Amino acid sequence: MGMIGGSLDAFIGSVHRRGAALDGEIELVCGAFSSNPEKSKETGKALYLPEDRVYGSFEEMIRREKELPEGERMDFVSIVTPNHMHFPPAKMALENGFHVVLDKPITLNRAEAEELKAIWERTNLVFCLTHNYTAYPMVKEARHLIKSGAIGKVRKVIVEYPQGWLSQLVESSGTNKQAAWRTDPSKSGAAGGVGDIGTHAENLAEYITGLKITELLADLTIFVEGRQLDDDANMLLHFENGAKGILHNSQICNGEENDLNIRVYGELGGLKWRQMEPNTLVWTNQEKGSRIIRTGVNAESRAAQVHTRQPAGHPEGYVETFANLYRNFAFAVRAKEAGQEPDPDFDFPGVEAGVRGMAFIDTVLKSNSNGAVWTKFE
Amino acid sequence: MGMIGGSLDAFIGSVHRRGAALDGEIELVCGAFSSNPEKSKETGKALYLPEDRVYGSFEEMIRREKELPEGERMDFVSIVTPNHMHFPPAKMALENGFHVVLDKPITLNRAEAEELKAIWERTNLVFCLTHNYTAYPMVKEARHLIKSGAIGKVRKVIVEYPQGWLSQLVESSGTNKQAAWRTDPSKSGAAGGVGDIGTHAENLAEYITGLKITELLADLTIFVEGRQLDDDANMLLHFENGAKGILHNSQICNGEENDLNIRVYGELGGLKWRQMEPNTLVWTNQEKGSRIIRTGVNAESRAAQVHTRQPAGHPEGYVETFANLYRNFAFAVRAKEAGQEPDPDFDFPGVEAGVRGMAFIDTVLKSNSNGAVWTKFE
Amino acid sequence: MGMIGGSLDAFIGSVHRRGAALDGEIELVCGAFSSNPEKSKETGKALYLPEDRVYGSFEEMIRREKELPEGERMDFVSIVTPNHMHFPPAKMALENGFHVVLDKPITLNRAEAEELKAIWERTNLVFCLTHNYTAYPMVKEARHLIKSGAIGKVRKVIVEYPQGWLSQLVESSGTNKQAAWRTDPSKSGAAGGVGDIGTHAENLAEYITGLKITELLADLTIFVEGRQLDDDANMLLHFENGAKGILHNSQICNGEENDLNIRVYGELGGLKWRQMEPNTLVWTNQEKGSRIIRTGVNAESRAAQVHTRQPAGHPEGYVETFANLYRNFAFAVRAKEAGQEPDPDFDFPGVEAGVRGMAFIDTVLKSNSNGAVWTKFE
Amino acid sequence: MGMIGGSLDAFIGSVHRRGAALDGEIELVCGAFSSNPEKSKETGKALYLPEDRVYGSFEEMIRREKELPEGERMDFVSIVTPNHMHFPPAKMALENGFHVVLDKPITLNRAEAEELKAIWERTNLVFCLTHNYTAYPMVKEARHLIKSGAIGKVRKVIVEYPQGWLSQLVESSGTNKQAAWRTDPSKSGAAGGVGDIGTHAENLAEYITGLKITELLADLTIFVEGRQLDDDANMLLHFENGAKGILHNSQICNGEENDLNIRVYGELGGLKWRQMEPNTLVWTNQEKGSRIIRTGVNAESRAAQVHTRQPAGHPEGYVETFANLYRNFAFAVRAKEAGQEPDPDFDFPGVEAGVRGMAFIDTVLKSNSNGAVWTKFE
Repeated sequence: MGMIGGSLDAFIGSVHRRGAALDGEIELVCGAFSSNPEKSKETGKALYLPEDRVYGSFEEMIRREKELPEGERMDFVSIVTPNHMHFPPAKMALENGFHVVLDKPITLNRAEAEELKAIWERTNLVFCLTHNYTAYPMVKEARHLIKSGAIGKVRKVIVEYPQGWLSQLVESSGTNKQAAWRTDPSKSGAAGGVGDIGTHAENLAEYITGLKITELLADLTIFVEGRQLDDDANMLLHFENGAKGILHNSQICNGEENDLNIRVYGELGGLKWRQMEPNTLVWTNQEKGSRIIRTGVNAESRAAQVHTRQPAGHPEGYVETFANLYRNFAFAVRAKEAGQEPDPDFDFPGVEAGVRGMAFIDTVLKSNSNGAVWTKFE
Repeated sequence: MGMIGGSLDAFIGSVHRRGAALDGEIELVCGAFSSNPEKSKETGKALYLPEDRVYGSFEEMIRREKELPEGERMDFVSIVTPNHMHFPPAKMALENGFHVVLDKPITLNRAEAEELKAIWERTNLVFCLTHNYTAYPMVKEARHLIKSGAIGKVRKVIVEYPQGWLSQLVESSGTNKQAAWRTDPSKSGAAGGVGDIGTHAENLAEYITGLKITELLADLTIFVEGRQLDDDANMLLHFENGAKGILHNSQICNGEENDLNIRVYGELGGLKWRQMEPNTLVWTNQEKGSRIIRTGVNAESRAAQVHTRQPAGHPEGYVETFANLYRNFAFAVRAKEAGQEPDPDFDFPGVEAGVRGMAFIDTVLKSNSNGAVWTKFE
Repeated sequence: MGMIGGSLDAFIGSVHRRGAALDGEIELVCGAFSSNPEKSKETGKALYLPEDRVYGSFEEMIRREKELPEGERMDFVSIVTPNHMHFPPAKMALENGFHVVLDKPITLNRAEAEELKAIWERTNLVFCLTHNYTAYPMVKEARHLIKSGAIGKVRKVIVEYPQGWLSQLVESSGTNKQAAWRTDPSKSGAAGGVGDIGTHAENLAEYITGLKITELLADLTIFVEGRQLDDDANMLLHFENGAKGILHNSQICNGEENDLNIRVYGELGGLKWRQMEPNTLVWTNQEKGSRIIRTGVNAESRAAQVHTRQPAGHPEGYVETFANLYRNFAFAVRAKEAGQEPDPDFDFPGVEAGVRGMAFIDTVLKSNSNGAVWTKFE
Repeated sequence: MGMIGGSLDAFIGSVHRRGAALDGEIELVCGAFSSNPEKSKETGKALYLPEDRVYGSFEEMIRREKELPEGERMDFVSIVTPNHMHFPPAKMALENGFHVVLDKPITLNRAEAEELKAIWERTNLVFCLTHNYTAYPMVKEARHLIKSGAIGKVRKVIVEYPQGWLSQLVESSGTNKQAAWRTDPSKSGAAGGVGDIGTHAENLAEYITGLKITELLADLTIFVEGRQLDDDANMLLHFENGAKGILHNSQICNGEENDLNIRVYGELGGLKWRQMEPNTLVWTNQEKGSRIIRTGVNAESRAAQVHTRQPAGHPEGYVETFANLYRNFAFAVRAKEAGQEPDPDFDFPGVEAGVRGMAFIDTVLKSNSNGAVWTKFE
């Protein structure tokens, strides 16, 4: 694996590295960790990479690695840069024959996403978009239960993603790098919280239910004076099967950490899951009451089981979701190289999910700018 | 107290009787428990009332009680009939000089509500509408904290009221009296779940925040085939101070019991409360983390304290909310009779809250019937 | 009902009155609320009793009420005095033909308890000891599930009763009447926390499991300097069927409210219940995971159902446990008067439970004073 | 790092490997994964090790690695064998100059532990015993708060470790390797559950409080017929400062996963922590109520902060505790090599904790075999 972005002071880069390392299936062999060559070098050194595999730019890395003999050169790139720097390295990597792991959202805007999709379709390469929250075992189990009819036809979906870390204008502090780029349209894209976390909520809802949102209505707000992008979004949803829904994401819910959660109600029961207690899935039923499904205890699906590493009660967490994605990606690469189909229980989001996310952002922005009106997905 | 409605097989009548009895301040002295005189008599007997104080109709009760000497006759009426039978007895009671406790919603429609308000304003009588959920001590404390600036200016309000008991067409079973009248427009009014529980959510949100909703957008659904009234509602809200909100109520959230809950986020913190764990209020803050406020432990407001009966950890529940309303109503009657102002910490919802609820229902229905569009309160 | 003790500033008296009033089956007709006649009068007045039914002493009340014609005189006495004043009025009431409701523990010591039992056995009267915590619907359900074999043979019982209200020497403040008498051996008996709350834990464990403790080992402590009675107790238990257990009660668990809770593990599963969330019972199983049983939702036993007043999700609490006891007691009195057997699903603790509690206290004190050694029940 | 034990079908070996890999500070370079050379080879292959670094026995590994040039040979051994195979490789590694990471309990019995301690004291090597549960950030914070006086003098400690996985005689199934060796005295030592999990509870209690247990009383049981070692233990504790405590561990709590938890009450407040929700620490106080301390939110100690990898609400779990130990161990090795003192906030359990654990086991067994009597630590 060669990493693009992810210098020492970045949040998501180290998460990717830990996720990739966890199962011992993937080795970091090179990196272009920063557009600042000095910073890249420093990071490479801290990661015990040989100096000659630490590059000053992603272009250099892709070019030079390609020249190395097979077996020695990196197998794939992992791109963990801010959003505006997703498309260029992803495009170049694919065009040079490297598989790609890319942090979400896929690109800065929908046009880039469509272009990237077109490029990818011309290759025979594996592409993983790290919508990691769908890699929790209990999310797999929820998806399985709905698919198997356990709660009947889905009627109502409530998906929430409240955070509080942007309750104040922290991006102007000069010390919060995360906040700075995420609230800067030139780096983050036209959406703020909707792009950063709203897309996770959308991805989670569609993944678990297996249903597409067909139209939505979005009411976006910038609550913190001086901010440039939305920090709060309230949406109503219509799903393809007639189900109705609510999605809200916020970064001004003062005191909330990272409380992505979903509730799905069907004709025969319901399911509830919270990211912050990820090993618990609650299966509700009007007459029978609630059953607790727990990681490592009583998940019935193979999909949940193969994403579980520890025995019951040994908490699995956030880093394991990245490990799940990287491991499944590695398996898919091997299957590809062996000319085999990948195992569907070891799935991960790809280009389609990325384009879907950009369509979601587009539809949300369009709805909101037209006065928070009902807007169909195009 | 004389009761109108509330025969033995009704749910809410016995709740009112228990609430009224709890503190020993109020005695049931007569009743017209059913439009069926036989049933009324039977109920009166089961409640140990003398035969001559059990009436065959509310008209008879009000007329005959009025003829009794003061001190002997009932002091007030408690009306616990289905919605369509709220207005006639309330009107007659007020016009005959009796204070009134009335189950919510105030009337079948807004016109009746406005008329009742006009009648009440001509009297010098006390009127209580039993929006009981705002009578929990921790709701009082939440209101106090927001008023005192503890969470700063309110930005976002999420209020939910999911139930699951109408997940199937139980109203056609012939055995569920509750379900039958609540889903029948002639008895319940033009709204189903919105009138039954949505109004509680609206009342809770406005009471706690002290803010009025100025416009809303409502997406109503009848999920269960054969049902006549809405069983699910998703709404977006705008508040007078610029805060945004979400309100959803549902009776098809299969497996949910009675999960009224609210989250309010301000510039400086947030508050979270759930009716099903009513003695806990969570005060969130981005830097300091969460503090748990508990009934009988650390509520700082007198309003919370005077609505607390037991020491910490001796759970207070639903029946105490009715007891709080009845006790506060009794205190207000006495204050009125003594020519004093009522104590504001012993408050309860009145005609205004009732009219507000009808305005809410009207606005919701109008928004929905126009295609789920933004609609201002009139 | 005539009440002995329970003046306005007492905690438990008002709980009893509310419990008795809740269902409209019982009326307070007289009282001797304090050994101070002035205070008794004042309390009676506040409770709207006629002056001539408020007495200056329990002796006077029992004597004078007995002289009243049947139908007019009180049916039973409710005794809510401090422990040292349990035996005299209970004895006199029974000897004068009045049924008795008595707050726990039954008497000041075991000798009194045995004597009271003997007196009661000579009468044909109904006796209720208000170990109220076993009157929760989910406790009834737990007992039913164990009896029905749902968790197999019981192996391990953990019952806890932590409180924190005596973390400091509050009894010397002069303002905490509760604390003052409860830590005074002349009023409370030879045990402090063990008598006050340890007996509730013992009663709960034996009631739910249907098993008797046969021997125990108790390590008692007085943590707060200047206190005269135990404020902390740790015990190991042996049950008659070979099950092992732990019981601990404390009043110095700083920050704990009233957290009585129990866990019972059998060969096939387990049950967990907490008084502070009384409407939830968790049924654990190694392979199937946990099921949540909730008041008003999915309790299978009639015993749980007949102790449930509200629909699901309308929290029932502490006051309902007293209402359950008083209602069941009233039913038993009527059955007795009608010459019928009482319905076993409407049960309540009686003299036997009281004597058992005193045996428990004795055994604990004996074990502790011998150096915390294993001690058999006598 | 060279690993001893931990073939593919072992539980704890893979946990160690993942923990060691997580931060990219440690590389697995060789292993003797099984006493069965075939199995060792297979494991090495699956872990992408070169064939010549996969050994048939630990003796061979230590001998051969020692012969490699510095910089190439392993820096330390990680020993993850069953208990009876802890002492021999640990001894040999130390005697040949290798630092050691060793799974707990340190050895099969106390004599071995003392001998190992003596050997270690003669070296200048770093030794880590993987009592991993004390490596959670919230455990560090709890220790810090107690040390800083936040809850005053400690009075009561309740530490529990219930599991349910040995509720049936699974060791005889032939398919549960874990269960088989853990219930076999020749491999596990004289204690069953007490050695496996009781020692974790003891370690946690003493680490958090900073207090030593001075005497205890233990009541051990074998509930499952046919089992050779204790599967349930109930203990009372006395601490050096006069605090009292309860410790119980069980593997027959049917339906419990891995619910290690602790409550500590002092004069001024209390602390509560559960391993299964490891990122939450509750700080209780009688007047102020409870405060929630969360990983990544409001921990005040540097010790907690340096053991936190993700921002708030991105759950950290079990694998991170091993990563913490391995990283801290690696830092200590480097400090040692640089002749520096290790940073006390990056601490980990060592030989002392191991000897302490064996003393605990010895005292427990002695108490139990004498009839569950009070027994002092020797």
